[in-house]
Amino acid sequence: MIIDCHGHYTTSPPALEQWRKRQIAGISDPSQMPKASELVIPDDELRESIEKNQLAMMRQRGIDLVIFSPRASYMAHHIGDFKVSSTWATICNELIYRITRLFPGKFIGAAMLPQSPGVDTATCIPEIDRCVKEYGFVAVNLNPDPSGGHWTSPPLSDRYWYPIYERLVDYDIPAMVHVSTSCNACFHTTGAHYLNADTTAFMQCLTSNLFKEFPALRFVIPHGGGAVPYHWGRFRGLAQDMKTPPLKEHLLNNIFFDTCVYHQPGIDLLTKVIPVENILFASEMIGAVRGIDPESGHHYDDTRRYIEQTPHLNEATRRMVFETNTRRVYTRLDGALLA
Amino acid sequence: MIIDCHGHYTTSPPALEQWRKRQIAGISDPSQMPKASELVIPDDELRESIEKNQLAMMRQRGIDLVIFSPRASYMAHHIGDFKVSSTWATICNELIYRITRLFPGKFIGAAMLPQSPGVDTATCIPEIDRCVKEYGFVAVNLNPDPSGGHWTSPPLSDRYWYPIYERLVDYDIPAMVHVSTSCNACFHTTGAHYLNADTTAFMQCLTSNLFKEFPALRFVIPHGGGAVPYHWGRFRGLAQDMKTPPLKEHLLNNIFFDTCVYHQPGIDLLTKVIPVENILFASEMIGAVRGIDPESGHHYDDTRRYIEQTPHLNEATRRMVFETNTRRVYTRLDGALLA
Repeated sequence: MIIDCHGHYTTSPPALEQWRKRQIAGISDPSQMPKASELVIPDDELRESIEKNQLAMMRQRGIDLVIFSPRASYMAHHIGDFKVSSTWATICNELIYRITRLFPGKFIGAAMLPQSPGVDTATCIPEIDRCVKEYGFVAVNLNPDPSGGHWTSPPLSDRYWYPIYERLVDYDIPAMVHVSTSCNACFHTTGAHYLNADTTAFMQCLTSNLFKEFPALRFVIPHGGGAVPYHWGRFRGLAQDMKTPPLKEHLLNNIFFDTCVYHQPGIDLLTKVIPVENILFASEMIGAVRGIDPESGHHYDDTRRYIEQTPHLNEATRRMVFETNTRRVYTRLDGALLA
Repeated sequence: MIIDCHGHYTTSPPALEQWRKRQIAGISDPSQMPKASELVIPDDELRESIEKNQLAMMRQRGIDLVIFSPRASYMAHHIGDFKVSSTWATICNELIYRITRLFPGKFIGAAMLPQSPGVDTATCIPEIDRCVKEYGFVAVNLNPDPSGGHWTSPPLSDRYWYPIYERLVDYDIPAMVHVSTSCNACFHTTGAHYLNADTTAFMQCLTSNLFKEFPALRFVIPHGGGAVPYHWGRFRGLAQDMKTPPLKEHLLNNIFFDTCVYHQPGIDLLTKVIPVENILFASEMIGAVRGIDPESGHHYDDTRRYIEQTPHLNEATRRMVFETNTRRVYTRLDGALLA
C-alpha cells in the first residue's frame, strides 16, 4: 500500500474561514467573538470538499491512505492568545476527525496543537489527549516557531518543549515539525519560512543531545528536510567539527524526512544521500504548489512518480518508503491498520 | 584559470579580535573605546596568516585567484550603532586591501558594508566608494538581515535597499547576499542562518519586480543557493502559481549561485538543475566546514573535486564555472585581469 504521511485539509468549506475571521475580529472586539457551536458544516459539505479534491487525486495517483491534519498555514499560532489558539485547534482537529470517520481507511488524523507564543507547552496536553484517545490520531504537528517568523521561542532542544515530548513518548507518536504562516515580511510562507524551519529544526537537534534525553522521540521533517539533504556534506562536516557522533547515530534513529520535493533531481538526491530507512513518502497534495510542471506534463506535487523513477531505490526499498517506514514511525497507524 | 568567488579572511591575527572585543566593551563604557589607530598588524603577520593558510590551500587545490572579503561571521552588524559598524568595516576592508597588495594577482577584494539595523542604507555609500575607487574591490557583501537572526529589516525588494543598489549599478559590481552571525538562539550561524538567508533572499527576489527596477543589478547567492536548487521544482511551481515569468527570465539574468556545497551529490544536483551560466566556482575554504570527509578522504570544502567529477559539466562548461562566468558577473575583476 501507499501511505502519504503529509496531507493538510486545504479544501475546507468557506464557513471555516468565515468563522476564523470572526474569531480574529473578536480578539479586539469581544462582542464579535463567535462560539465554537456557531460553526456548522454538514457532513455532505465535508464529504464533497474531500471527494472532489484529495480523494480524486488519491485515486488518480494510487495513494491508499493519507495522514491528514489541519491546514498548516491556517494554524497561525501567533494570532491571539492561548484561548484563541485552543478553540481554533479544537475546531480544526474535530473536522479532521469527522473526515477520518466519513472516509474510513482513507484518512487518519494528525493533530494541530493549541500553541501560543510564550505559553507553557503543557497547555497542549489536553488537546493531544483528546486527539489520540478520542479521535485515534497517530501524530501531531509541532510548530517550532509559534510567533510566525519571528522565532521568539527557544530551540526544540530546550526544556520549554519537554511537556509535549513526554506526552508524545507516552503515546509513542511522532511529531511532524511544521511551521505555519509567516507574519514576517522577510519570509514567504511556503517558499522560505517552511524550508528554513526544516533546516533550522534539524540543526537544533544536531547541536543538542535531545535524543539522548528522549531516545524514543521521533520527528518527521517535512519538505524533504528543507536544505539538509542538499547540504548533507556540510552537516556531516559541521557535526564532525563539533565532535558530535556521526549523524546516523546522533540523529537518524529519531529524525525522518518526507518526500515533498517537487522535481526528479531533488528526489534523486534525497534517495541517494539519506538512508532509505529515514525516508517517508509524502506529497502534500493540493498544498503549496498546485500546478502542472510543463517539463514533465504532471503535477509538481505528484511525488509518487519521482519515487518510482529514482535510480536509487529498488522494489524492496521503494516499499519501505511507500509503506513500511511510515508504519514503523507512526506505530499507532500500524496498530490501526493491523486491527 | 580558476577563480574562487567566495573567500573570507577567517585567519586574521589575534590582534584583530582583541581590538574588536575592546570596541564592543566600549559601547557600554566609552572610556574603553579603542581608536582605529590602536590596531597595528605588521605586514609580516598579515603575510604569514595568509601564506600558511589560504595560499597553501590555493596551491594544493590549484586555485589561482580568490575574491576575498572580511570574515562573514565577524561582520556582526547587530552590534552597536552605525558608528561602531562603520569603524569596524573600515578596519576590516583595509586589511583585505593590504592582503590584495601583499599578494597581487592572488586576492582581489570584496567589501563588507557598515550596515546597522534600521539605519538608512545610504550611509554605506562612502565605504563602497572607498573600496571600489581606492582599493580596487570588485564586489560587496550585502547582509539582508543586519539584526543577526531577528529579520527586522524589510525584504531586499524594498526601497530601503535602493541607495546601495544604485551605487552597485553605477560601479557595475555585484553583491554577494551574505548574512553574519546569528544572535537568535534558534538559528545556528553556519548550519541554519546562512542557508536560510540564501533561500529567503531568493524568494524575496522571486516575489518582487526588483530586477525590473534594476535590470543591471547582480546578486550572487552563496552556499549553493541555500535550499533553492534542491527545491527547484517547488520554486518553478510557486512562480507559475503566482503567474510571474518563468524563473530563467524573471531571475536568472541577475541571480547567480556559488558552488559552496560540500559533497558530490549536492554539486551534481546544482549543475543538473541550474543553467551553467548561473553557477560560479567557490569553496569558502577555511570557513564553515574545515574537516576531511572520511567518505572521500578529502576536505569537505575542496569543491573543485566535485566540479571536476560532476557528470553534468564538460570541459567547456567547467571553464565557464571556474572562470568565465565569474569574469562576466564581476566585470571589474575582468577589467583588472585584462589590465
